[in-house]
Amino acid sequence: MNRMMHLGLLAMGAGGHVAGWRMPDAEWGSENLSLLRRMAQAAERGRFDLFFLADAVNTGLDAHPGMMVRFEPLTLLSALAMCTGRIGLGATVSTTYSEPYNVARALASLDHLSGGRAAWNVVTGSSPDAAANFSRDSHPPHAERYAMAAEYLQVAKGLWDSWEDGAIVGDKASGTFADGTKMHVLNHEGRYFKVKGPLNITRPPQGYPVILQAGASDAGRDLAAATAEVVFTVQQEMDAALAFAQDLRDRCAAAGRPRDAIRILPGVCIVLGRDAAEAKARIAELAKLAHPDAALRVLSDRLGHDLSRFDLDAPVPELPPSGMMQGHAVTLAAVARRHRMTLRELRDYTAASSGHRVLFGTPEEVADDLEAWFRSGAADGFMIKTTHYPGPFEEVIDRVVPILVRRGLFRAEYEGSTLREHLGLPRPAHPAQASVPQPAG
Amino acid sequence: MNRMMHLGLLAMGAGGHVAGWRMPDAEWGSENLSLLRRMAQAAERGRFDLFFLADAVNTGLDAHPGMMVRFEPLTLLSALAMCTGRIGLGATVSTTYSEPYNVARALASLDHLSGGRAAWNVVTGSSPDAAANFSRDSHPPHAERYAMAAEYLQVAKGLWDSWEDGAIVGDKASGTFADGTKMHVLNHEGRYFKVKGPLNITRPPQGYPVILQAGASDAGRDLAAATAEVVFTVQQEMDAALAFAQDLRDRCAAAGRPRDAIRILPGVCIVLGRDAAEAKARIAELAKLAHPDAALRVLSDRLGHDLSRFDLDAPVPELPPSGMMQGHAVTLAAVARRHRMTLRELRDYTAASSGHRVLFGTPEEVADDLEAWFRSGAADGFMIKTTHYPGPFEEVIDRVVPILVRRGLFRAEYEGSTLREHLGLPRPAHPAQASVPQPAG
Repeated sequence: MNRMMHLGLLAMGAGGHVAGWRMPDAEWGSENLSLLRRMAQAAERGRFDLFFLADAVNTGLDAHPGMMVRFEPLTLLSALAMCTGRIGLGATVSTTYSEPYNVARALASLDHLSGGRAAWNVVTGSSPDAAANFSRDSHPPHAERYAMAAEYLQVAKGLWDSWEDGAIVGDKASGTFADGTKMHVLNHEGRYFKVKGPLNITRPPQGYPVILQAGASDAGRDLAAATAEVVFTVQQEMDAALAFAQDLRDRCAAAGRPRDAIRILPGVCIVLGRDAAEAKARIAELAKLAHPDAALRVLSDRLGHDLSRFDLDAPVPELPPSGMMQGHAVTLAAVARRHRMTLRELRDYTAASSGHRVLFGTPEEVADDLEAWFRSGAADGFMIKTTHYPGPFEEVIDRVVPILVRRGLFRAEYEGSTLREHLGLPRPAHPAQASVPQPAG
Repeated sequence: MNRMMHLGLLAMGAGGHVAGWRMPDAEWGSENLSLLRRMAQAAERGRFDLFFLADAVNTGLDAHPGMMVRFEPLTLLSALAMCTGRIGLGATVSTTYSEPYNVARALASLDHLSGGRAAWNVVTGSSPDAAANFSRDSHPPHAERYAMAAEYLQVAKGLWDSWEDGAIVGDKASGTFADGTKMHVLNHEGRYFKVKGPLNITRPPQGYPVILQAGASDAGRDLAAATAEVVFTVQQEMDAALAFAQDLRDRCAAAGRPRDAIRILPGVCIVLGRDAAEAKARIAELAKLAHPDAALRVLSDRLGHDLSRFDLDAPVPELPPSGMMQGHAVTLAAVARRHRMTLRELRDYTAASSGHRVLFGTPEEVADDLEAWFRSGAADGFMIKTTHYPGPFEEVIDRVVPILVRRGLFRAEYEGSTLREHLGLPRPAHPAQASVPQPAG
């Protein structure tokens, strides 16, 4: 069978563009259940693999309008599980500000509720401001956050293995409710966590929810190579994306996994027009609607530095790594260097999609570009957003996806029912069931 | 208007009776979404106020079959919010093993998703085994857990007040997304928690989700008197229930709240028959299906002591308070004393409903009993369970509830749309909006 593209919707209720919500045809609100439901249903109509929610555990008036107030991902996705039937449901949950028992449990619950459609975007927390919401004096340093995340993930997997498949028997005749030989106590004692288990929910339908990651730093890539099944990445240029993909596949092999174990999905903001010029005019219209300070704050967030003291018409300043959002910071700096952008130009570029690549053109041109990235090996598919919702995203579903299907690059119908099946990922066997069974006694 | 009864479904997927799942007509499984959905829809058909989920954050083979494995409450209720339209949705969440920011956020999210139907059963954790799942060396002592809970609740309310009503403007013309004067930074610094805020979700439709509590100890009653809006209580006898209600209302008044600020709902397991003898025969049939060890473990859990070393045919031993499940322990001890029960008799009594009162009889007799408790002031309504599901519960909806309606004791139709409206509870005003508005400048 041909290698097939995988597509996700990067669902931001207020739109990808910082001023997207102001467009006349925009509905907005990350607390707008009706809008989010229609977005998920449109993505499912387009046979997308995944409906994906970014997240953070802090906010303020300086936040992107789509991130200022919003639903909590696990509760929202549990609701959307009832309004959809096939599409995967991806939640971002931080490993720095939560308990692995609670999170493993809620993700298992979502996987059960949705019939095997849950994914977990494992993040370590991109904003140091979160610490103040969790009785911590400071945000742990980058390396420590990644070490915690690796152990946290190990605990979560161990908890998901608390009950082998078939452990709950419910045999009315004999009165046997559970088969005790299929229950496993984890007894994890690590550097950061001490978790006994077992978890109070059976093994998720997918074994484990699909593990998604977006780390771009060295530590982030290593964690992804060791554990991720989908990597969501910020990539502005195909050559850099290809180099990233090759590096990640090398690390994957070094970690003892197949080179193609990970589905690599760069983010892309698609802007359609009758031609590229019309599409670019749409962005120019949006740039006029964006408040300059709000736009600069988005870039400041991405680069991890307050940019308000810099000259907007000078070249983009060289800034040291901040330890935050490194995928954005590195690729935006590269774009700025390559195109010799001023800070003002980079600000407007970033406002368009909060740092992801913006792809302009006719549906054919957009499909050509996606196909080129896909065929080159720079991408296994894409996390798609649009400047606002729902209109421009429905246009992508109705005008771009059919071209990809026609070219044999994307599924015409769902073939499986779980997210793992959509992504072509195996269901992890239970450790006790993976080995050759020993005869009893 | 007449004072009206309030009814909740105490939803245990495997049934109230420890062997309920074994009945030929029982569907079982606390991970059985289809069953739980039909139970919620049956309760809504009966115009119940509330669908309520108990919870714990530990498990093992010694757990009640309904509590061994199960959905996580907040995700399950978010899903059920999509399958129901009016009934309240109550989640049990521990304040000992979670972060107030995460929990306040998820509860607000459920309240938004459900259009104002969320309730939170604030518990401090009834099992010391939970500590081992959360990197803790020990379960905090009773007094400390209650002090933590009080502060946690204060933090949660402060976080729910992060945004006044109308704070998110979304004015496309001016580009104003949020009204900064309506955002509030909490800056809480207490003994147990340091939480800056603001929360990243707007004020719940109900202001705060309805606060439910079940604490029966002195500290538990004081916390309930100060903060609860619904109290779920274990009561075996009407006189003791009346004394409890009067004590709670006295404490309520002492805390500066109206005496009727709290809806007091004793739990009751209803067993219907053509007469009381047939109903009792049903319980006897179930007693035969219960494994003696499993039944004794339920009682051991309720009393907080391992009872396996005691003589089953001797009188129930006098045991010191364990600090766990005091409502169950005290009322069961009283029942045992009053009826001079042996340990075996108390074991079988407790197995029937995991410690709640069992009410046998015809629909008319059951309605008479509920009415007597309600009219005496011992109860404002009831948390109802049945020995198994869905049949016996649907019988309660179809045969008992219509009698209560006919007698003018229970609503014939929902009048409001939020849980607060069902319960006749006011929506808490935002502190900044409750005071007389000051002219600006």
